[in-house]
Amino acid sequence: MTKTNTSPRLFVDDALKAESALVLDPAQAHYLGHVMRLRVGDAVRLFNGRDGEWTAAIEKLKKSSCLMTINGLLQPQEAESGPWLAFAPVKKTQTGLIVEKATELGVTRLSPVFTARTNSGRVNPDRMRARAIEASEQCGRLTVPEIAAPETLQGFLDQWPVARRLLVLDETGAGQPIAQVLEDLRGGNGGISPECGFLSGPEGGFETSELESLRNLDFVTGVGLGRRILRAETAALSALACWQAILGDV
Amino acid sequence: MTKTNTSPRLFVDDALKAESALVLDPAQAHYLGHVMRLRVGDAVRLFNGRDGEWTAAIEKLKKSSCLMTINGLLQPQEAESGPWLAFAPVKKTQTGLIVEKATELGVTRLSPVFTARTNSGRVNPDRMRARAIEASEQCGRLTVPEIAAPETLQGFLDQWPVARRLLVLDETGAGQPIAQVLEDLRGGNGGISPECGFLSGPEGGFETSELESLRNLDFVTGVGLGRRILRAETAALSALACWQAILGDV
Repeated sequence: MTKTNTSPRLFVDDALKAESALVLDPAQAHYLGHVMRLRVGDAVRLFNGRDGEWTAAIEKLKKSSCLMTINGLLQPQEAESGPWLAFAPVKKTQTGLIVEKATELGVTRLSPVFTARTNSGRVNPDRMRARAIEASEQCGRLTVPEIAAPETLQGFLDQWPVARRLLVLDETGAGQPIAQVLEDLRGGNGGISPECGFLSGPEGGFETSELESLRNLDFVTGVGLGRRILRAETAALSALACWQAILGDV
Repeated sequence: MTKTNTSPRLFVDDALKAESALVLDPAQAHYLGHVMRLRVGDAVRLFNGRDGEWTAAIEKLKKSSCLMTINGLLQPQEAESGPWLAFAPVKKTQTGLIVEKATELGVTRLSPVFTARTNSGRVNPDRMRARAIEASEQCGRLTVPEIAAPETLQGFLDQWPVARRLLVLDETGAGQPIAQVLEDLRGGNGGISPECGFLSGPEGGFETSELESLRNLDFVTGVGLGRRILRAETAALSALACWQAILGDV
């Protein structure tokens, strides 16, 4: 959590390498010039998910364009082992919250999954990606989580890589305590890989038939988060916080 | 997390006992009649933090008053062992989020604490209590967390019961990993009681001098939540989720 550098931190698509130049997009130019009130010569940090984090200096700054010169490497790129999170989309505000907090908590892939009781009719992957980029910029990670295409529950399960454990947040009380499941994954019991993903249901919970189908899958483990009825977004974020504390880099 | 009953669940101040009558306040009467569209004879669940949870029936329902008859006991009152949470107030939306999620995650006392870098000039304890009541009604717990009076950091520390461990969320990376600290508390290492509280800083973090003072206190343990820079509300909620999974009723 050490904050080594306080200059603004931006995600870019371009390649990053020493002594090269780069043009920021108009929104980023506006942010640096008008929101942050930076000037020519000021430092900015840049990352693209592939080449590590670099320090760069503002070379030219106009109303809607900004030319940067890339200087030194601050952090080399590292492999990330964060979990995946699949979740039934909830209301717009809460879906945004899930994306933001999951990014802060190190999730590497976010999958919107439509279950039987999902109230939200559609999701906006572009908005999800924008929120994930913003959260990645703020929290200091070197990547932005992948936003998977929205899927039905069945379509999602059909594509799941069976070597990866899927921890389903089971609100009925039938799941195993989450700390125990994560400890087992860390210990590699039964030769299981610690790589995993979580599946979090909609506000109304999974349908009984959905839970039964899920429990019959070899790669699924049902996990419980305690006796209280957690809101959908609280359940997802609690599970990720536990993952970080027990299996992550905490 | 088992949902045994789906009738509306309301917190009341009055005593609850079998075959007694009770008048709900106008806002609750409006909620039952106009939002939930209940009628005379319909069931409602009531709890007051002292007498357990009861099922009650609507006896008379007018525009702004509702007379209930209390029937059977659904759940006897139980002692709760949830942690305390002290936090530097953040923006209104995020403070509301902390109150809601902390209630879902079983916190028994919420204390607003003003630190040097706290941006929010004031808090509204009545709004905090209303949000905590709403979250308690929804998540099925039998109590509403206590909202402590806002305090300065020094005032808060002066009143802290020294037998209870205070886990300070240390964003500098100097804290011990949270899972390890909670496991030690559970194991009772050094004869320490598992009762604890968390202290979460403002968006800008604690000042160096504040962290130094905190580290010098015998009842304080600094805990770390990983390498990423978590927003203030994410840090508080992550710590509570870990508490639930490792020390709580999960």
